[in-house]
Amino acid sequence: MPDPNQMILATFIHNSGAHPGGWRWPGAPAVDQHDFAHFAHLAQTAERGKMHCYFSGDSQGFPSISGKDAFAATDYAGKLEPTTLLAALAVVTKHIGLIATASTTYNEPYAIARRFASLDHISKGRAGWNVVTSASDGEARNFGRDLNMDHDARYARAEEFVDVAKNLWDSWEDGAILRDRDAARYFDPAKVHELGHKGEHFSVAGPLNVARPPQGHPIIVQAGGSGPGRALAARTADMIFTAASSVEVAKEFRDDMRARAAAFGRNPDHVKIIPSVQLMVRASEAEARRADEELLDLVPEALALRTLSLQLGVDLSHLSVNDRLPDLPETNGGKWVQQSIIRMAREEDLPIGLLARRVVVSRASFSYTGTPEQVADLCENWFRAGAADGFSLSPNYQPGVLEDFVDQVIPILQKRGLFRAEYEGDTLRENLGLPRPENAFVANPALGCEPRMWA
Amino acid sequence: MPDPNQMILATFIHNSGAHPGGWRWPGAPAVDQHDFAHFAHLAQTAERGKMHCYFSGDSQGFPSISGKDAFAATDYAGKLEPTTLLAALAVVTKHIGLIATASTTYNEPYAIARRFASLDHISKGRAGWNVVTSASDGEARNFGRDLNMDHDARYARAEEFVDVAKNLWDSWEDGAILRDRDAARYFDPAKVHELGHKGEHFSVAGPLNVARPPQGHPIIVQAGGSGPGRALAARTADMIFTAASSVEVAKEFRDDMRARAAAFGRNPDHVKIIPSVQLMVRASEAEARRADEELLDLVPEALALRTLSLQLGVDLSHLSVNDRLPDLPETNGGKWVQQSIIRMAREEDLPIGLLARRVVVSRASFSYTGTPEQVADLCENWFRAGAADGFSLSPNYQPGVLEDFVDQVIPILQKRGLFRAEYEGDTLRENLGLPRPENAFVANPALGCEPRMWA
Repeated sequence: MPDPNQMILATFIHNSGAHPGGWRWPGAPAVDQHDFAHFAHLAQTAERGKMHCYFSGDSQGFPSISGKDAFAATDYAGKLEPTTLLAALAVVTKHIGLIATASTTYNEPYAIARRFASLDHISKGRAGWNVVTSASDGEARNFGRDLNMDHDARYARAEEFVDVAKNLWDSWEDGAILRDRDAARYFDPAKVHELGHKGEHFSVAGPLNVARPPQGHPIIVQAGGSGPGRALAARTADMIFTAASSVEVAKEFRDDMRARAAAFGRNPDHVKIIPSVQLMVRASEAEARRADEELLDLVPEALALRTLSLQLGVDLSHLSVNDRLPDLPETNGGKWVQQSIIRMAREEDLPIGLLARRVVVSRASFSYTGTPEQVADLCENWFRAGAADGFSLSPNYQPGVLEDFVDQVIPILQKRGLFRAEYEGDTLRENLGLPRPENAFVANPALGCEPRMWA
Repeated sequence: MPDPNQMILATFIHNSGAHPGGWRWPGAPAVDQHDFAHFAHLAQTAERGKMHCYFSGDSQGFPSISGKDAFAATDYAGKLEPTTLLAALAVVTKHIGLIATASTTYNEPYAIARRFASLDHISKGRAGWNVVTSASDGEARNFGRDLNMDHDARYARAEEFVDVAKNLWDSWEDGAILRDRDAARYFDPAKVHELGHKGEHFSVAGPLNVARPPQGHPIIVQAGGSGPGRALAARTADMIFTAASSVEVAKEFRDDMRARAAAFGRNPDHVKIIPSVQLMVRASEAEARRADEELLDLVPEALALRTLSLQLGVDLSHLSVNDRLPDLPETNGGKWVQQSIIRMAREEDLPIGLLARRVVVSRASFSYTGTPEQVADLCENWFRAGAADGFSLSPNYQPGVLEDFVDQVIPILQKRGLFRAEYEGDTLRENLGLPRPENAFVANPALGCEPRMWA
């Protein structure tokens, strides 16, 4: 059983690094983001540090090629699809959790439930699903739409999607598979259930054609910051990733999410709030400041401005870098990031050029470069302030920053008693201190429908 | 370069075995079909035998739980999802091709193109996609429909789906990724293309967000036997799996497919026709006959009858085992299997009970148990008769039959010069002797559309 006084540590998968200048960092090796060996090394490094999980963000589109020359300066030239990548990583790791992003807007619940059940079986209980609703029109255009589905409609669909997926995972009860050769009974049909789900967005018969995952349900992760996003997370998520620009913002968010979870009748301790920290580690304060500057200088101004436009979902190309951000229309994209950026611009009265330089580094999340002790202090302060159950590290460049964190920061956290020395359990769920969910069909025998005759 | 006088050898993935009695075979270990180690052992065994590919069939549904007691006698209690399973298998193998089934009816081309591109990168050029259109209503009911899409509509959708997937794979040209740190150019935007595809079934902007796969395109596999199925395969497939009840049927099919491929302007030698053979290997003829009988006796009659009904897509429960098959209505399912079964019933005037026992063993494909020499003779005869470019083995139980084939039959084929002693190339495509496809955007610069501004 994990010690509740110890923090959770996750790390984001990035191609060459979270920082857009990271791939140009002279000290870092050139990373081929289609080479599995790169990701295997990162996952094994995080596991060496006893970290909880390795997380792959995702989108089902390319940001834009209209800003060709600007975007050609980023390493975003594709990435491996998360469920296939993490299935392969399951083979080269033993303990670390493997969390893949998949959209509820451009997928079907049967297919997603099946892939994550598979990943959970292959990894022997280490899978997690980061539920996203796909904020960009670029993704919509790859799936038969000109514009993205409306924000609230996406979340209504996501609510039903997650419920259907959970019931599909429960459609084979634990112990349904018998393999009784003498009785010619491979499975016990009484423990296999049809859903007969007919909802507003989905109609799904079931049962799933994969046995119940080792964790019961793979870990559900969510990162929505809007009202509907928070409601979905509070009701369904085991872990919530968030981008917080300060310890105050993080604490406010965590308090809100815990209260919302309690309002859904859940134990707030079973919802882990994990802000992301974009990171570098340096031997001294002076070196840290220099590294920040040098890295930012590797980002062309045109890329910074394009990125700002993309994050806001608004074309800013008619403005000069010295202008202030105009009032912006409500958009259909990811609201949390937009609002954080707008707040930053207003509070500090930043001209667009400076705002762009700020946003291009870390979007809305906290960015920090410091000595190992300073980074450990930051983590300890946020954790003790009740602003975080743990952190998701976004290394500015790879694999150096993750190696630095594992080799230099984690030992300090361990010495302070804030991080474990060994994995406590076998599954991700156990290592997060989360209970294995009860089977919905066992809890409620009236769930589902009578088996129907096939035609 | 592979020797054109040598055959291709593939093997099907089955949970415990292709034969429905296989899981009860007393000599075989109990197989946990959710345990990755089982499949890793099989893939490594096939690779030890220098076999070309390991193939995972699939459906996105459970056959039926209305016939609960009958189906509880099969080992079909779920299976791991193929793309995740094969990604994991890529890590524990080096040479063997990895072919996963995915449906064009219940998927979107962007998502499928991306997963298979990922699998091709992770495996360094060993991925294949078996294109299926999903024949069962059971699958339809998991994806929002009461009945399956009409047969011809499924194939019209599949034609467009495969074309879009291929163009997505081409949307990043070879060499598009530069990683030029000094010039701040990670990629060359001139080598990245939007599709702007607007077709009858799909609207897909592109580009894909994965670089061009190592093979250019993963191998396309098809197995449709109907008119539209053959047309799709002849136009788009690199390899065609087929179920043929005799060498004559196989030859007729191969001749037809080669002629159809030529009519599409393709080199018929670039379409590999691979019948499946359901197999056991025994030391003597007498032991072979006894094994066939003993294995069939492990299949309850009720399961055989249910399976026959399922394969025909018609409820036969009102008939007796001594009745003959009545005239059947045209159904919406997989036509090739249905027609093969009906032909078998008529030609041999089989009563339903016997027909069911025949069908439950191997559906429409060729089933054979013999000595190593006899199995080698069978392969040689079909190959020399021009009935097959190779074979896909369906072992009756696992892992024993695959081990027997690799250890006892392959050495004979090698001695006869009919099978290679070592892998010739690095990618599946090279090992099959297939050319790497030209990039459609390079061949036709007018393809695609002008990049659009994102909103």
